[in-house]
Amino acid sequence: MNYCSNCGSANLSHQVPTGDNRPRIVCGNCGDVHYQNPKIVAGCLPIWEGKVLLCRRAIEPRAGYWNVPAGFLELGETVEEGAMREVWEEAEAKVRLLGLQTVFTFTSYWHVYLQFVGELVDGKFGVGEESTEVRLFAEKEIPWEDIAFESSRFALHRYFEDVKKGVFQLHFGSI
Amino acid sequence: MNYCSNCGSANLSHQVPTGDNRPRIVCGNCGDVHYQNPKIVAGCLPIWEGKVLLCRRAIEPRAGYWNVPAGFLELGETVEEGAMREVWEEAEAKVRLLGLQTVFTFTSYWHVYLQFVGELVDGKFGVGEESTEVRLFAEKEIPWEDIAFESSRFALHRYFEDVKKGVFQLHFGSI
Repeated sequence: MNYCSNCGSANLSHQVPTGDNRPRIVCGNCGDVHYQNPKIVAGCLPIWEGKVLLCRRAIEPRAGYWNVPAGFLELGETVEEGAMREVWEEAEAKVRLLGLQTVFTFTSYWHVYLQFVGELVDGKFGVGEESTEVRLFAEKEIPWEDIAFESSRFALHRYFEDVKKGVFQLHFGSI
Repeated sequence: MNYCSNCGSANLSHQVPTGDNRPRIVCGNCGDVHYQNPKIVAGCLPIWEGKVLLCRRAIEPRAGYWNVPAGFLELGETVEEGAMREVWEEAEAKVRLLGLQTVFTFTSYWHVYLQFVGELVDGKFGVGEESTEVRLFAEKEIPWEDIAFESSRFALHRYFEDVKKGVFQLHFGSI
């Protein structure tokens, strides 16, 4: 932020506003306080006949790496809708959400991943615009060294552990 | 947003950027795309000896109404940390988180509530800076007409229903 989005002034500084306890970006001209907040990344790990569906990313960051379908939540949609939309956009697949499985906070990147597990509705999928390749993986086939983000690695490990235990549960992670 | 926060220009308009499928605020001068995203509100319903701890809000919006301790997640903290911080700030209480209980999306206000249920560590609490009154309520004492937000009403109803069933589960709601 170089200019105040309210008045256009360049007179911005980090200050602790009255009644607050953290430094914020404050405009010295109009007094506006510009709060910054973490963003939600909604996603879903699609499963089908014991395998998981991953997408090879066509776009940066981490282009070429495999990922659980996920992306920024949009204004006006629920977390559940965002997760299903992302599976459609990246893998041209419809899922029935089974439950929230991972809450993963990237404390440095200011992203909070909310990832579901969902079953493919009809087993069909394709290669969405943001992907170069989409395929189902059994656990032993997963390219662990080529997973895009720690949130996906975390979710995949926990998922397969839970399948062996015969449970489904929500996991919290952070980095 | 009246001015571009990158270059200070007032030449802003809503356009669908190349490769995107939604209108965004785009600067006609420097080309910056200003994405807007929902904000996370982290909270926790504190419980103690069968009662729940609510705070009467000292600040707008909904000053004077009762609420589950919750507030905007800050940069650099996990969702769990944010929930515990809010309980401390509003109710001067320490909680041991028992689990995520509510994911509630306000689609019009662009807020996503992530609310835990937590047990008071030692039964102690006070009146935090953002509250005018803090107290424990049994179910039959809850001032349902004076609850601040639908997310809190939703979480409280589900919590007491689940207590009667002897289960703990995550609920999704939206408005």
